[in-house]
Amino acid sequence: MVKDLESLLSVNSRGMKKSQIRELLKLTADPSIISFAGGLPAADTFPVEELTQIINDVMSKEAHLALQYGATEGDTLLRTLLVERYRKQGFNISLENLIITTASQQALDLVGKIFIDRDDKIIVGLPSYLGGLSAFANYGAEMIGIPLDEEGMDYTKLKHALEDLNSKGEKPKFIYIIPDFQNPSGITMSEKRRLDILELAKKYDVLIIEDSPYRELRFEGTEVQTLYALDNTEQVLTLGTFSKIFAPGFRIGWVIGNKEILDKIVMAKQATDLCTPPFTQRIVARYIEKGYLDKNIEKIKIMYREKRDVMLKAFEEYMPPQIKWTCPEGGLFLFLTLPDHLDTSELFIEAIKEKVAYVVGTAFYCDGEGKNTMRINFSYSSKKMNVEGVKRLADVIKKYL
Amino acid sequence: MVKDLESLLSVNSRGMKKSQIRELLKLTADPSIISFAGGLPAADTFPVEELTQIINDVMSKEAHLALQYGATEGDTLLRTLLVERYRKQGFNISLENLIITTASQQALDLVGKIFIDRDDKIIVGLPSYLGGLSAFANYGAEMIGIPLDEEGMDYTKLKHALEDLNSKGEKPKFIYIIPDFQNPSGITMSEKRRLDILELAKKYDVLIIEDSPYRELRFEGTEVQTLYALDNTEQVLTLGTFSKIFAPGFRIGWVIGNKEILDKIVMAKQATDLCTPPFTQRIVARYIEKGYLDKNIEKIKIMYREKRDVMLKAFEEYMPPQIKWTCPEGGLFLFLTLPDHLDTSELFIEAIKEKVAYVVGTAFYCDGEGKNTMRINFSYSSKKMNVEGVKRLADVIKKYL
Repeated sequence: MVKDLESLLSVNSRGMKKSQIRELLKLTADPSIISFAGGLPAADTFPVEELTQIINDVMSKEAHLALQYGATEGDTLLRTLLVERYRKQGFNISLENLIITTASQQALDLVGKIFIDRDDKIIVGLPSYLGGLSAFANYGAEMIGIPLDEEGMDYTKLKHALEDLNSKGEKPKFIYIIPDFQNPSGITMSEKRRLDILELAKKYDVLIIEDSPYRELRFEGTEVQTLYALDNTEQVLTLGTFSKIFAPGFRIGWVIGNKEILDKIVMAKQATDLCTPPFTQRIVARYIEKGYLDKNIEKIKIMYREKRDVMLKAFEEYMPPQIKWTCPEGGLFLFLTLPDHLDTSELFIEAIKEKVAYVVGTAFYCDGEGKNTMRINFSYSSKKMNVEGVKRLADVIKKYL
Repeated sequence: MVKDLESLLSVNSRGMKKSQIRELLKLTADPSIISFAGGLPAADTFPVEELTQIINDVMSKEAHLALQYGATEGDTLLRTLLVERYRKQGFNISLENLIITTASQQALDLVGKIFIDRDDKIIVGLPSYLGGLSAFANYGAEMIGIPLDEEGMDYTKLKHALEDLNSKGEKPKFIYIIPDFQNPSGITMSEKRRLDILELAKKYDVLIIEDSPYRELRFEGTEVQTLYALDNTEQVLTLGTFSKIFAPGFRIGWVIGNKEILDKIVMAKQATDLCTPPFTQRIVARYIEKGYLDKNIEKIKIMYREKRDVMLKAFEEYMPPQIKWTCPEGGLFLFLTLPDHLDTSELFIEAIKEKVAYVVGTAFYCDGEGKNTMRINFSYSSKKMNVEGVKRLADVIKKYL
């Protein structure tokens, strides 16, 4: 072994930390713990029967294609089906505007790779998805956090941040936004806020990265158009994934955007994994073709809505009055805010003892704030466990109050 | 769309180029072209029947696990099976010394990510695998090329390069070596050379990246131990993959090495794709368990040996005497050297007209040399097409001589 490993490491890798969520997932592998920590879909949403049928079909008819190397841009059939799907949702795009990635986490990494030099500024939500923050941090990004209100990223604070940078002759590489059922807060950005932020992005010539893994999981309320469709001038890159509407085990996502930017992403992807598995791409393409995807989404929405409802009801019933939580209209998460003097990382140890787990809020705050917050997942555990878990969590919180 | 995209791009991404091989693969999609260009396995090596059986088994017994998120380190069953396999080959390793990656291309990218800062020096072969060069170039590595002789990387030149750097108080981040049936040259490094280079690496406290995708495809001659096993002090990181011995469409590879380094790679991987598809990992694990992998490798070796043999025979028969080629004892490639005044990139246009394709040698030379060389793949086309392709190629070359 080399004597001086530290000196061999890149500057960026010296600062890399293990993802708290991933480490927590290991901890919560103990089946007696009710875990609200992960972002896992419920296993009973996986369409095992339909999938088995499709796979046998692919293996008997097109195995030689599915098992071979594929194009870096992705399987053309899958891309075509996704483009059709998005055109129905108001996206003015063609095949050249969509490429496949190895789940949307890879898209976040590649966005970091093509845009971020060390100490470059980017704008993110306070709070924001940990995996996005990590991907950008690994390229040395300096993050400017903008708080959220109930309509999404605070407009005035974003405007001030952009003005402030502009006055110094600077601009951020992009604004990272999760507009629908945001991870971790569960908040959906209003249409007005989307339009206002698009205007700001245009004024300051800044790209928007729209990360949209949960959008199709709306249980109630009115759908808001994506930033991409509201704009349709390619000021936005939109990231999608099958992880929450089909199965994360396939690791398939996509990026929609301007051709010139996608070309750069494809070049970066070539050296990153050559191509996303053609095997799983072809299977999911045939699965969509058969109309199974939409049916499965309807099934998932009913299941998750019920899980959210029992959880919200349990919060009402068991949580002390000082505790606040968000009421998401869809997605997988809600966000709990405790009184200022409580620290959810201290509570965590007690919570594990009481066999319930969550993610400590600070993980989602690039500025180290959020000490009194936690993210709660309602999609993974059963309804019964959701209620039991809230009970346990309420007991732990009461102890600390 | 943003007005000034160029200013938003990272310094590294401004220099990114499309891989010539990937672009060529598109060109050679024309089925009338005999393509020696790609690094593709023959489709009839894919174990479709056994695989279909295994997949149905996995879907009926462990779909919920295979379709869910998995650990960043990889499926424990698959890792355990691979560790056992390597221990039989003289690797003194345990589970913590092996992690799964999304094919070995991702391992190359992650190695770049954790070690390379812009302008850092690394040592590579002249010629060397294009995908490795691209992965490292995308982090801004400055490459020092060391020519190969028939025993592998030239020892004296490597020694001088290390001494030279040392005298300036510098050292390379690593030495990148493909010891068995090297891509593109087909050369296998001798045991003596391996031991000598290991000694140099220790003396100058430099890591060795041993990229080993073809090692198990030896048709003849005596097996040489891996750099890893010859050393067994963790001075070496070894990269492996199922792409050439099973199927590239699964995109599964692995890295073997020191735990501390693997920890860093895992941290980088977390933000890169969270995990390699658990679905394909579990399938290939069950496939190995059943003993199918070793049987399939035996089958592949027989097929590729025959393909190589007819190709070498065709070279003898059709090539003009000025042309030289390597005679690999295994793998997928051989390397052609034309007289100095010929340029294989000029020949390429004519070759495509004559319906035969190869990869222009310069792609593999970090110093821009190799203009009179080309890489020839013998695994993908049928034996008949291998002969016909060599005939066509010989005609093109004769025209230019």
